[in-house]
Amino acid sequence: MSSVTSTPATKGLEGIVATNSSICYIDGDRGILAYRGIDIHELADNSAFEETCYLLWFGRLPKRDELNSLRQRLADERHLDRAIIQLLREAPKTALPMDVLRTAVSALAFYDPDLKSNDHEANVRKAIRLTSQIGMIVASYGRIRKGKPVVEPDKSLSHSANFLLMLNGEKPSPTAERALDMALILHADHELNASTFAARVTAATLADMHAAVTAAVGALKGALHGGANEAAFRLMEKIDHEKADPVDYVRDMLAQKKKVPGFGHRVYTTEDPRATHLRVMSRDLGRSSGQPKWYEMSEKIEKFVKAEKKLNPNVDFYSASTYHVLGIDEDLFTPVFAVSRISGWAAHVIEQLDDNRLIRPRAEYLGPEHPNRYVPIEKR
Amino acid sequence: MSSVTSTPATKGLEGIVATNSSICYIDGDRGILAYRGIDIHELADNSAFEETCYLLWFGRLPKRDELNSLRQRLADERHLDRAIIQLLREAPKTALPMDVLRTAVSALAFYDPDLKSNDHEANVRKAIRLTSQIGMIVASYGRIRKGKPVVEPDKSLSHSANFLLMLNGEKPSPTAERALDMALILHADHELNASTFAARVTAATLADMHAAVTAAVGALKGALHGGANEAAFRLMEKIDHEKADPVDYVRDMLAQKKKVPGFGHRVYTTEDPRATHLRVMSRDLGRSSGQPKWYEMSEKIEKFVKAEKKLNPNVDFYSASTYHVLGIDEDLFTPVFAVSRISGWAAHVIEQLDDNRLIRPRAEYLGPEHPNRYVPIEKR
Repeated sequence: MSSVTSTPATKGLEGIVATNSSICYIDGDRGILAYRGIDIHELADNSAFEETCYLLWFGRLPKRDELNSLRQRLADERHLDRAIIQLLREAPKTALPMDVLRTAVSALAFYDPDLKSNDHEANVRKAIRLTSQIGMIVASYGRIRKGKPVVEPDKSLSHSANFLLMLNGEKPSPTAERALDMALILHADHELNASTFAARVTAATLADMHAAVTAAVGALKGALHGGANEAAFRLMEKIDHEKADPVDYVRDMLAQKKKVPGFGHRVYTTEDPRATHLRVMSRDLGRSSGQPKWYEMSEKIEKFVKAEKKLNPNVDFYSASTYHVLGIDEDLFTPVFAVSRISGWAAHVIEQLDDNRLIRPRAEYLGPEHPNRYVPIEKR
Repeated sequence: MSSVTSTPATKGLEGIVATNSSICYIDGDRGILAYRGIDIHELADNSAFEETCYLLWFGRLPKRDELNSLRQRLADERHLDRAIIQLLREAPKTALPMDVLRTAVSALAFYDPDLKSNDHEANVRKAIRLTSQIGMIVASYGRIRKGKPVVEPDKSLSHSANFLLMLNGEKPSPTAERALDMALILHADHELNASTFAARVTAATLADMHAAVTAAVGALKGALHGGANEAAFRLMEKIDHEKADPVDYVRDMLAQKKKVPGFGHRVYTTEDPRATHLRVMSRDLGRSSGQPKWYEMSEKIEKFVKAEKKLNPNVDFYSASTYHVLGIDEDLFTPVFAVSRISGWAAHVIEQLDDNRLIRPRAEYLGPEHPNRYVPIEKR
């Protein structure tokens, strides 16, 4: 097969550089994650989600008036077309929340005033709009599927506080708001993770941001990606329900060659720097809400898996117990991941379309040799 | 950045082998395309779309009873949930057909009996179901948006004849049925084209076939991918409307450094072997339907672009005039591409999930150096 590199397929493109990017810096061996060069630890401690969005979309931290303006623009987009609410209502009870979110995000294209433009400014407007809309869709669907009324957005609140208001029907405590805000900052971007890569592959055909973000929501669903936070909590719930010893339970899983969800990461050989913050948050939230058992169980599982398999917890492991204590149902954990990651997806789509090239690799063909004759049906 | 190959980014992964595959063989320098080793010319001349589906999904040509069984299974799936028809009805008039198709395909997940299973047999069932459903969605939406009643499927017809019946409200002539069938065979698969690659990236997270196919529909929309057939026809329509000379018109485009849609392909340096068949079909259909002008214009444009730019027409160029003569509106050309390519997408998702590995490349970071300090807002 000519015009193809002679190297054999690197399965999963592991270690292959697929594009240049100025958004996210990761050093997996040193446990470093940084957005636009700013260390995730500094952002987790000091930033707010809106400021992190600004950083991702515009490439630098905002001045005060710039941040206020972005907060205002995000708040101004806090309205969903009635048809989208209707779509959420009409989804059958058995539908999976990530499938509903993907369908709703796809349908948002119908109503987007900038749909036919792929230029930089239109894409920034779509980034702002989709970030507001995805938060509202997840919160509203969280209520609709339980037969509860949709809560009106409050434009005076932060993105995180408004999300918790629209999900839970009451303004969150400052601790809860800060906890979610930190989780949204930590999940906002992670270079060419599978959903972001799916978004860039899609955008690179010159399809638009809605097509790209719909693809990303599809990819995020998978158990090897965003779906892992839900799986991590289901494991803990099972251990709790069966009143099992967490270490015995996980030992059995490992003996059966089962993967423990929330551990290991293709990119990090050290601790996932996001887990460092989520561990503390899970502990503090658990204590302050009188539900310390999830953190305590997490700690035991972490210690055992580390000792047995030399695997570190990843971003999914401690976000599970954190989200649970925030009153988020476990099947909304992955949608909440999308509420954050839309900021990174949008940044990558903007970057891709600013200097585009179709992403079209090759496969190494291992099938029947050509020419394999077309045998008439009566002779098969 | 450690554990990353030291080579600089190959933009667009051009020439990079992303996976092994036994589905589609392409030799771009010799102009060869083959499904499971069988040359596309043999398939175009002898096969039917259902047989090609069998070949793609099961890896070999079917015996007669196997082919009859697959035809029956495809026909048995010719029913759409009422909620999907409702979704098509509720899409605003301004919605783009590819966005409506993407949203409807995403919503099909809600009603799929195999949704929670990703095993091989479940995926084959989903492949059959989605192939039937996507054809019906495109045909039904083609009518609904014009205020026409939805046509009931006819389970006794071939996939192609049923599609044309449901789109046009009458059984197609044998010539029209054969023309569409050949177009569906020619478009069925093309290795790791961008939409198939988006599907594999999505499926590789262990998200399901519906997530993967939704991503693929998103990617197919782009002007650098499936969207090119519509663009090619719009160009010809414009030339016809302005009563311009095709060669003068295209010469002006080239002088303005504009790309002529339907020419050139990343993989083929020779003629796209699919264009060979579509050229003949476009000519014959044009003559037999009394609309030879589109083919004649295409021929002039081809000759000129070949001479001037040494670019060959690709699959999109002659499918444009073919589809037009078949009574398909130009903004349904890309959806019709999906009616065919679902067969290849499904084959690739099945292959991906049969031996999965997460597809997660790296980016070469070119942004601000880490650590770039977090400066407090009052000091920015």
